[in-house]
Amino acid sequence: MLPLILVVISVTVAGADGTVTSTPHPHPLDPLSAVELTAARAAVLASALIPARPISFHYVGLDEPDKPDVLSYAYTSTSILPRRALVVARAGGQSHELRVDVTAASAPTVLSHAVHRGAGFPMFTAEEQVAAGALPPQYPPFLDSLRRRGLAPRDVGCGVFSMGWFGGEGVEKGRRRAKMQCFVVGGGGVTTANFYARPLEGVTLVVDLEAMAVVGYSDRVVAPVPKAEGTDYRADMVGPPFNGPAAAPGVVVQPEGRGFHVDGRVVRWANWEFHVGFDMRAGPVISLASVYDADAGRRRRVLYRGFVSEIFVPYMDPEEEWYFHTFMDAGEYGLGTAASSLQPGADCPDNAVYMDAYYADGDGMPVKVENATCVFERYAGDVAWRHTEAALPGQVVTEVRPDATLVVRTVATVGNYDYTLDWEFKTAGSIKCVVSLSGILEMKATPYTHADQIVGVDAHGALVAENTVGVYHDHFVTYHLDLDVDGTDNSFVKNTFVATRNTRDPATGGAATPRRSYWTVRREVAETEADARVDVNGAPPAELLVVNPSRRTKLGNVAGYRVVPAGATAASLLADDDYPQRRASYTKKQVWVTPYDRAEKWASGMYAEQSHGDDDLAAWSARNRAIKDTDIVLWYTVGLHHLPCQEDFPVMPTVSGGFELRPSNFFERNPLIRTRPPGNSNFQNCSCRAG
Amino acid sequence: MLPLILVVISVTVAGADGTVTSTPHPHPLDPLSAVELTAARAAVLASALIPARPISFHYVGLDEPDKPDVLSYAYTSTSILPRRALVVARAGGQSHELRVDVTAASAPTVLSHAVHRGAGFPMFTAEEQVAAGALPPQYPPFLDSLRRRGLAPRDVGCGVFSMGWFGGEGVEKGRRRAKMQCFVVGGGGVTTANFYARPLEGVTLVVDLEAMAVVGYSDRVVAPVPKAEGTDYRADMVGPPFNGPAAAPGVVVQPEGRGFHVDGRVVRWANWEFHVGFDMRAGPVISLASVYDADAGRRRRVLYRGFVSEIFVPYMDPEEEWYFHTFMDAGEYGLGTAASSLQPGADCPDNAVYMDAYYADGDGMPVKVENATCVFERYAGDVAWRHTEAALPGQVVTEVRPDATLVVRTVATVGNYDYTLDWEFKTAGSIKCVVSLSGILEMKATPYTHADQIVGVDAHGALVAENTVGVYHDHFVTYHLDLDVDGTDNSFVKNTFVATRNTRDPATGGAATPRRSYWTVRREVAETEADARVDVNGAPPAELLVVNPSRRTKLGNVAGYRVVPAGATAASLLADDDYPQRRASYTKKQVWVTPYDRAEKWASGMYAEQSHGDDDLAAWSARNRAIKDTDIVLWYTVGLHHLPCQEDFPVMPTVSGGFELRPSNFFERNPLIRTRPPGNSNFQNCSCRAG
Repeated sequence: MLPLILVVISVTVAGADGTVTSTPHPHPLDPLSAVELTAARAAVLASALIPARPISFHYVGLDEPDKPDVLSYAYTSTSILPRRALVVARAGGQSHELRVDVTAASAPTVLSHAVHRGAGFPMFTAEEQVAAGALPPQYPPFLDSLRRRGLAPRDVGCGVFSMGWFGGEGVEKGRRRAKMQCFVVGGGGVTTANFYARPLEGVTLVVDLEAMAVVGYSDRVVAPVPKAEGTDYRADMVGPPFNGPAAAPGVVVQPEGRGFHVDGRVVRWANWEFHVGFDMRAGPVISLASVYDADAGRRRRVLYRGFVSEIFVPYMDPEEEWYFHTFMDAGEYGLGTAASSLQPGADCPDNAVYMDAYYADGDGMPVKVENATCVFERYAGDVAWRHTEAALPGQVVTEVRPDATLVVRTVATVGNYDYTLDWEFKTAGSIKCVVSLSGILEMKATPYTHADQIVGVDAHGALVAENTVGVYHDHFVTYHLDLDVDGTDNSFVKNTFVATRNTRDPATGGAATPRRSYWTVRREVAETEADARVDVNGAPPAELLVVNPSRRTKLGNVAGYRVVPAGATAASLLADDDYPQRRASYTKKQVWVTPYDRAEKWASGMYAEQSHGDDDLAAWSARNRAIKDTDIVLWYTVGLHHLPCQEDFPVMPTVSGGFELRPSNFFERNPLIRTRPPGNSNFQNCSCRAG
Repeated sequence: MLPLILVVISVTVAGADGTVTSTPHPHPLDPLSAVELTAARAAVLASALIPARPISFHYVGLDEPDKPDVLSYAYTSTSILPRRALVVARAGGQSHELRVDVTAASAPTVLSHAVHRGAGFPMFTAEEQVAAGALPPQYPPFLDSLRRRGLAPRDVGCGVFSMGWFGGEGVEKGRRRAKMQCFVVGGGGVTTANFYARPLEGVTLVVDLEAMAVVGYSDRVVAPVPKAEGTDYRADMVGPPFNGPAAAPGVVVQPEGRGFHVDGRVVRWANWEFHVGFDMRAGPVISLASVYDADAGRRRRVLYRGFVSEIFVPYMDPEEEWYFHTFMDAGEYGLGTAASSLQPGADCPDNAVYMDAYYADGDGMPVKVENATCVFERYAGDVAWRHTEAALPGQVVTEVRPDATLVVRTVATVGNYDYTLDWEFKTAGSIKCVVSLSGILEMKATPYTHADQIVGVDAHGALVAENTVGVYHDHFVTYHLDLDVDGTDNSFVKNTFVATRNTRDPATGGAATPRRSYWTVRREVAETEADARVDVNGAPPAELLVVNPSRRTKLGNVAGYRVVPAGATAASLLADDDYPQRRASYTKKQVWVTPYDRAEKWASGMYAEQSHGDDDLAAWSARNRAIKDTDIVLWYTVGLHHLPCQEDFPVMPTVSGGFELRPSNFFERNPLIRTRPPGNSNFQNCSCRAG
């Protein structure tokens, strides 16, 4: 990641589809509306609880009603629940936490107030990043540095880099500081939209974000500024000619219209129903996902709430300008505040429906992100199930059911990286989460212009352009998955595949045959959190499930959902005692399970910026609480080690990873067995043309 | 897998598209035509080299020209190369290998003849499976078994099951035997298309396939025959009502028409060009895949040949009726002979183009499979690359390039399992191989009707229906990938991610900062085959590449392609000394690299049926040949442990796994940087309707 410098200006979009309707009252999980955000701000500003000024708003989000109340709303009655905001504000050098009732927007009430006393700070605001960006050009030593390099202040832009935590209680304690680094964005008549391609290597500033002043400065090394040529990626700068590979345009047409309905932020499609929320830290939030079981004749719960809780991005260069590049993209910058307005027909196909989103700016005022989320039916040409039977006398039977899925997509652009976050719902009962990475590398300016110059040297990255090293790094995308498989009380099961010697003794499962070995399944129900920390790459292999021990099929199998990794299972390689790793120690295992606790939402802790790792997922898990037959939360981390290559320059082709939540003995049988076979639609001769 | 019993009757299909044209002369890698197959048969039958009769044809495939000749044809001149067939025929109790020149179909010539002296046999023919299927109803002990169970001969169907090899040279040596097991397909007025759902458990026959006689019989245990109710999957048997989840129909429309061209069996699309072959053992074969590099202004080689070499499917029940269920679906049954005629609009979307295929039946005569392969452009709504930039003064830049890919699909239905084999080409230069499993479980009849009855017992499977256990098993799909990255001579590189302590000493890559650790990359070029056997789940993690050491970018990086696992990385858990594992010992590692040898095509050996493992991939690799800077072949195995669940009954929802071959410093930069941005197509109001 790299920081935002300006507030995102939302792009104006085509009008949303007519199927989006609004409800008279908000759903209890709806994100705060512009009116509610404004009300929360007003209550905080009016409160005597924070006498200090100025007050900056670092987080304003829905303070969710208690889970039983939400479940009651969703499945029993739809009584109106109070609307509350959780506000984290900075004032007087302190982090204040307030709960504000905004049910009556004209009369909001502060319900509670607390001051955070521990380590760490809330997310940066966009405004303070912009304000900080104005400091270097007014800082004489920085101007000297520019002059020595033949650059003018207007040629550079600087960004706020979280500084992490590297021991001690000293300078950081209570002092909200950040580092700043700069990039050449103009000069010599050249401009590029690639902000990150031309680093002003060697210069690092430290800013005090509360005093909004430069408090530290280092100009340690000078490296050539990489050339601007070849760094741009805008169509009007790279072409014409557009001589890159071109596929024929293709558009999905739905002859019977769209198959899903949006009611407020509740989406209903095929057998699925769920709510699409939005949070300025997490970005998209999927809640109350339930699937209709046609055999049982009822809707059954699957996922109470799912969202990306953190994206930890440590870089692998120990040098002065790079060692602290250990970003927590959600907790430090915010995936919701980083939500990009989706481009119709590009980010999402033409059959998509869009939802807007609001978050609070640093002054507490609502900011609208148009087209923050899209929902579309995907027709990828896959097959849901099939079989051809040639063994029947006198006939060949072929039955095929093509697959269509529903995708909910948000793109969070946290500085240089663009994370496309997809929640894909399948009629077979699966939910697939995919994170796709594109955007721009974090690059280091170097004197190197050829790989041969790097032999025998650790450049901590790969040469991706002249004078440009793409620095080695990781991405750890941690999902919070509050599965409620057919009810609230669940257990976590490890079905380990155990290599077994054939004893030839039936009492131990053996048989008197020449077969010498096989595998069998050792089923273990996790009793406590320690039993549920899993390295999915470790031996022996296992199938991991969240089950509902009180819900069994007619055959007696326990209803469950498996978590199936789908690539990108890297774990952190940092030393356990290294500071960044202490702050994100959960990244050494892909799977954790905790008992539900409404306070435990953020894998890196509520106050992730400069956190010490004392309030993170691993710290909670260390309490080793009971997790059997109770409300539990599964945490899954998608991990990638990124060794850059030249194809990643100047902008990266998408790389994806993810996992699937797949029913296992949840249904009595294949839930798609009674689906209608496809008709004889044939659009080959369709005369349809772009309108 | 389970065996075919009847020859597949190809389904009549809609006419292929007008873009499919034929060339006057076959491409040197085109599969043998019906005329050529017939010619090869005639030459073998007329040859004095095999005096014995009858002659059965077990394999007839293209005897490929030498690689330099094919490369010369493809990239230099298009001189006509001789057409040759490789025939494996059984006669007089021997396996004969013949090479036949069929260039002049009217005057075919046998070029060489050899008799296979080692272990193992060629694939079964469909005809002998059908003939064997007629034996049990004429075998009195079997009739007694049926009578005792209250069944009539017309109620059952039997299939040929490969018996594997379980030690010794005795009974199997030179004796081509197989086991047979049977299923209830009728009786009591009920029928089901689910051949595998109602096993006649406990009865096993042994047949001598050359004498075509029953030579062994066992009726060991009796289990209830599972009921037929609920086993069918045909639309007209399960509905109406079709109350399963239904998505709205969606169809891809290509307003400018199809973007690919098929010339004979050469496909050209966007920056890709490749040849689609077909083999009765391997099924689809992708050859001569090359990508146009717009920056270099030339077409560059990527993959000389890729195909599924073997699918090893061991079951995990050691009992008498199950221990030998250790199938080699390609080497014993054939993925090409198992190719299903694809259903337009179901197996492939409406914008697909189809190719037919031919193979030889047991009499050597050509069999046509209509619609054996489809090719289509996939518009899945994915993004090829994107970036939103908010850090530039006064503007927000967003550039997005939607992705479209080209898919080549074949479905091989080997008895009960349907393998959808996709080769997906991406404009970014990637080739993604995905295998999707659907079809029907191999099931064991048991007295169990409830999971509680199985507590404390190893049922070697999971209860998926009353009296029905889905037996534990694995699938190991091994790809032969003769990568020729920008030329023939390549090397295999392991870039291992090495956790490193910060020494604070710049001489060792350290720095005097508080950072304590990072990872770096240890690059190792494999010298010999032993260096290139990789367990991708093992620590430490690594990036694996095939590179061309003589081709470097302008920056000096070595041109390569990475192999990126995309889920399904299971390795075999069988004991090394167990017979099935000895026959497929390569399934303990996902990655192997061998020097190119035209004889080394089949991971399980040329004669896989009852093989001893002495001619398989692991045996070749044990020679530990040099593999540096030479023509090498990468072998990659997609592996799944399958613990069945009730959703897999009566037919399984698709499960997928695969890998991606992704360019790494192959291009000078992102090859998609100069692609045209999408237009403003908007089909939302399209009035197009199904024709």
